[in-house]
Amino acid sequence: MIKSLEWTGNSLRIIDQTELPERLVYRELTRAEEVWEAIRKLRVRGAPAIGVAAAYGLYLGLKEKHIRSPEEFITQARELTEYLSGARPTAVNLHWALQKILGGLNEKSDVPELFSGVLKTAIGIHTDDRQRCEKIAEHGARLIENGATVLTHCNTGALATTGIGTAFGAIYKAHKQGKKIHVYVDETRPLLQGARLTMWELKEAGIPATLITDNMAAYAMRKGFVDLVIVGADRIAANGDVANKIGTYNLAVNSHYHRIPFYVAAPLSTFDFSLPSGDAIPIEERDCREVTRIWDRLPITVEGARCWNPAFDVTPAELITGIITEKGVAKQPFAKSFVDLNLKNSIHQNQKELIL
Amino acid sequence: MIKSLEWTGNSLRIIDQTELPERLVYRELTRAEEVWEAIRKLRVRGAPAIGVAAAYGLYLGLKEKHIRSPEEFITQARELTEYLSGARPTAVNLHWALQKILGGLNEKSDVPELFSGVLKTAIGIHTDDRQRCEKIAEHGARLIENGATVLTHCNTGALATTGIGTAFGAIYKAHKQGKKIHVYVDETRPLLQGARLTMWELKEAGIPATLITDNMAAYAMRKGFVDLVIVGADRIAANGDVANKIGTYNLAVNSHYHRIPFYVAAPLSTFDFSLPSGDAIPIEERDCREVTRIWDRLPITVEGARCWNPAFDVTPAELITGIITEKGVAKQPFAKSFVDLNLKNSIHQNQKELIL
Repeated sequence: MIKSLEWTGNSLRIIDQTELPERLVYRELTRAEEVWEAIRKLRVRGAPAIGVAAAYGLYLGLKEKHIRSPEEFITQARELTEYLSGARPTAVNLHWALQKILGGLNEKSDVPELFSGVLKTAIGIHTDDRQRCEKIAEHGARLIENGATVLTHCNTGALATTGIGTAFGAIYKAHKQGKKIHVYVDETRPLLQGARLTMWELKEAGIPATLITDNMAAYAMRKGFVDLVIVGADRIAANGDVANKIGTYNLAVNSHYHRIPFYVAAPLSTFDFSLPSGDAIPIEERDCREVTRIWDRLPITVEGARCWNPAFDVTPAELITGIITEKGVAKQPFAKSFVDLNLKNSIHQNQKELIL
Repeated sequence: MIKSLEWTGNSLRIIDQTELPERLVYRELTRAEEVWEAIRKLRVRGAPAIGVAAAYGLYLGLKEKHIRSPEEFITQARELTEYLSGARPTAVNLHWALQKILGGLNEKSDVPELFSGVLKTAIGIHTDDRQRCEKIAEHGARLIENGATVLTHCNTGALATTGIGTAFGAIYKAHKQGKKIHVYVDETRPLLQGARLTMWELKEAGIPATLITDNMAAYAMRKGFVDLVIVGADRIAANGDVANKIGTYNLAVNSHYHRIPFYVAAPLSTFDFSLPSGDAIPIEERDCREVTRIWDRLPITVEGARCWNPAFDVTPAELITGIITEKGVAKQPFAKSFVDLNLKNSIHQNQKELIL
């Protein structure tokens, strides 16, 4: 199993995902600014993975400062939290991980204790993510029958998390269980995470896959090629609306039209119960050059072309068949199902103890 | 107005559209094989334009042979028709133009008369296409209100026809009429005709435009950015089912879901009344490398990746608001509307006389 990131003891070692699949390049990050840049530039990406990366980034940032008092430590931790949270606005996991560390700080501790507390929480978040992936994969794999064809979007595998993935984890688990499955992979313009990363992970895992351009998914559904769709999430509102990689909403509308089950897989850290609906989720708009060029290398349109580049979209709850979490699969109506699965309380409890 | 192709008197001069928008390169074609290659490789593309190109290609092919008798002329013309028709299977205009020439051959003529007859018909098809574009644009422009935002897919402009275009023609005409319009352009993977060609034509025409990736269209619709969709067609069946560039069906499903009018614009030469429905339209599947690479230059996925690459899809009539033809706008139910507009008879009549 590939590791998107590892804590070496004094640095964060990440796979630079912007280099894949051409080259497998590792980078050692020792400063908060490097972590911020790696998240911003999508060297490390995927909602769960950036949560873990930010947690270590906070620790690295604190280590850089010459902190002399617990008060100073807490002030610096708050500033760094704000700084790192700003790297990407849509995925709430980033914010969640940092808040979790902040919430665990005991003002009565001395500075060395505070340092070790932060690192312990970061490592805890990391371990926790791996275990949550396992649980999500178990619940998700039950939805994939032997012989099924699954369509997925973007990348939600080992690269997007620190475990076996979320949506990808379910696919991976079903394959490991001996089910014969086939995966259709949306290339996922503009940054082609499906073509670059998911196809790479599927090849590594030996799972049969077919790459398509995003605009072919509807036609594949019409032709009966797709049994179910599973995607990840960057933020889930209290009513079950889901923000995820741009193109997810397009797939959800098409799944609805073709009566194909549409599942979202995400850990509890992706839920934001403070938002009543997806309308309130901030949607990151990125540089136009991601659309007008391929990876800033190959221009594909006229000079000076205007573009629109939302990195995410919001899929309304009514288009979603189920949301696969580590606690089970939430179903319509989601507000009730979230209560039945005790998600909100699990999140509160998780503020105190880390391990699932 | 840019000319996708021109007859020089003894050669076919085309813009090599695979070079756009980087370079404006013209190519002189003097042999049928060159025309076949140019159509196959999409140097000349767009259903109406390839019909005209094939007509000249047939003439060029006949000129290459040392033909001594009218019988030989007709045999060779039939063989060349089959050869050129095979360059691309989905767009029926290719087939239509060649059949039109074959149908006009008078076996009682001598060889020089047959040559001049073929050339005259080819030139007639060419002139005719320009005029049909004008009519389509007039009918289409009426559907675009002042202040409207139109979403389009692929390229349907001067480059795709020999006039001002079909779907693009309607947009161009509305702009010329002084209506303030804005165009959202699907980049149109895999070959990016929207990004490369439509953005280029819109820039040349001074029409404000925003480029998006294909998977953003649904979200743009949800956000209320799109007032109507107009696309072209490669073949239209008797019931109004439409084959067009891959991704069209995806847009149609999304337009339906968002209750946005979805129009198709195409000349009569695109209709195939011999097919009861779109199920019978042959769909060209192209080389996987169009999906796994950008223009055979930049690989975007793992080596050996399997892909699916249908160049077209079929949109069922029930998702289409109207079909804009040179005879007017056909509406639901199409079978009746086609009769009311006298389309079938117009096509038959057009087998005899060329000019609209």
